[in-house]
Amino acid sequence: MAEFTPRNPGFAERTRSSFARQGFMSYLGAELTALTPGACEIRLPYRDELSQQHRYFHGGVIGTLADNAGGYAAFTLMGKDDSILTVEFKLNIVAPGEGEFLVARGHVVRAGRTLSVCRSDVFGVDGGVETLCGTAQMTLMRLADRSDGPAD
Amino acid sequence: MAEFTPRNPGFAERTRSSFARQGFMSYLGAELTALTPGACEIRLPYRDELSQQHRYFHGGVIGTLADNAGGYAAFTLMGKDDSILTVEFKLNIVAPGEGEFLVARGHVVRAGRTLSVCRSDVFGVDGGVETLCGTAQMTLMRLADRSDGPAD
Amino acid sequence: MAEFTPRNPGFAERTRSSFARQGFMSYLGAELTALTPGACEIRLPYRDELSQQHRYFHGGVIGTLADNAGGYAAFTLMGKDDSILTVEFKLNIVAPGEGEFLVARGHVVRAGRTLSVCRSDVFGVDGGVETLCGTAQMTLMRLADRSDGPAD
Amino acid sequence: MAEFTPRNPGFAERTRSSFARQGFMSYLGAELTALTPGACEIRLPYRDELSQQHRYFHGGVIGTLADNAGGYAAFTLMGKDDSILTVEFKLNIVAPGEGEFLVARGHVVRAGRTLSVCRSDVFGVDGGVETLCGTAQMTLMRLADRSDGPAD
Repeated sequence: MAEFTPRNPGFAERTRSSFARQGFMSYLGAELTALTPGACEIRLPYRDELSQQHRYFHGGVIGTLADNAGGYAAFTLMGKDDSILTVEFKLNIVAPGEGEFLVARGHVVRAGRTLSVCRSDVFGVDGGVETLCGTAQMTLMRLADRSDGPAD
Repeated sequence: MAEFTPRNPGFAERTRSSFARQGFMSYLGAELTALTPGACEIRLPYRDELSQQHRYFHGGVIGTLADNAGGYAAFTLMGKDDSILTVEFKLNIVAPGEGEFLVARGHVVRAGRTLSVCRSDVFGVDGGVETLCGTAQMTLMRLADRSDGPAD
Repeated sequence: MAEFTPRNPGFAERTRSSFARQGFMSYLGAELTALTPGACEIRLPYRDELSQQHRYFHGGVIGTLADNAGGYAAFTLMGKDDSILTVEFKLNIVAPGEGEFLVARGHVVRAGRTLSVCRSDVFGVDGGVETLCGTAQMTLMRLADRSDGPAD
Repeated sequence: MAEFTPRNPGFAERTRSSFARQGFMSYLGAELTALTPGACEIRLPYRDELSQQHRYFHGGVIGTLADNAGGYAAFTLMGKDDSILTVEFKLNIVAPGEGEFLVARGHVVRAGRTLSVCRSDVFGVDGGVETLCGTAQMTLMRLADRSDGPAD
């Protein structure tokens, strides 16, 4: 995995603050569990409210975590006045999302001036054993000098 | 849009029953609002719990609706003993998900024996005006003679 | 399909000139057969040099046509000093590419200031009958005030 | 990268034979330069016939190599009577395809009974320096007991 130098030394605090302002993350019960320049990890415990018809994690939940892990991986490399948005997102679901919790790990593949490409993997974790359930590739766009939200 | 003949005359009831068993759909507050052979519509009113950091609908919510609208569009064409799963999913987000509610419309592009390809569009609706916010293309797989879940 | 007003009244001539400067298109034997604001059609007769191991059109050929039909559809809406590049590209192959020739039809789904989203369908044509073999969704980026090439 | 055990001990010979029967690969001038269980490398020297309008490698060429490198990576893990086809393919182009030649490296991410997910990276190589120009994620389908072509 490539090494990246963040433009904003306060990247971790700013990323955590943005994550905390996403109502949907707290509604799901997701937690930002690791953050380094160009990489991000998110965890989410199982609840029936997150299930599809077979009681696995819903594909939309897997996709949401994959998207957010990749997006915040890219966000760690933004300048302190930049915002970011997801241009597009492609996810393969390779196994049912099953286990006590999901963990999604995203990383930046290439950080361009305007566009960044990221990947993320999502695992179901049961008794400490991780099983890949989804793998994603996505494109993010930097919005220069655009606030990341009301409290940014 | 192509016309399709469902293999299962009870497709509508079976699809609505599967939708109702997805804990995540009711947790989001989503409603299945239209269903014809090869097509499906889902609606979801705005709540702060579904937002990202700018108070728009979270991209993961847009993706979840797009995935489900396409998936249930394919499900309408399945046999009465078939199940279905999302193989992969690609979404472009073309505008912020904004409005009183989202509406996602999915349809089958090609129904193969094993794999189906679907598309779906997601619109933010404000004062009756629909604005496209996401457009998706996805691949679904038929699982023959596999129950769709406990109560199926 | 949406209606678009081209920013450059000379869009057709400029698009045809760009197509003509693509060495790969003439090497394949592809022809630009229709062009309207926001839409483009390309045809390519079968030759064994374009085949995969079963003597169908190679998936890479289907992808190349799908990419170019969508890309030039977007190019018709560019300003006279803009260039364009493919950000990403997603293709489903739904049937073997079979027939006397392929025809690819691309159209713009949404034309943004910087990014455009296009779709294209590729058909194998045999005895006048068209069979869908590939369907694609892609993202293009406008490069403002960038020449489209040496002779532009 | 995962380690894989091929089901067919003669996988290398069979893969090279399939590659050799693709008319399009020899028409492009592509060469299969490395093959291990679950991984494949393809090289292609620059020629003007492979260019787009700026004299870089055409995006369709980058996509073709990415698709084939991933597809043959999956093919190495097939049984001796299996065939394979590309279900879908997603490519990000992250830089112009520039250099004396392209090299595409594909590998299997997950090999399922029916579906496999692969990734591939394509680099432009100039004076021994590799620059990433494309990165892809794709889905392949195994066709059991289906010949890979006339001479298989």
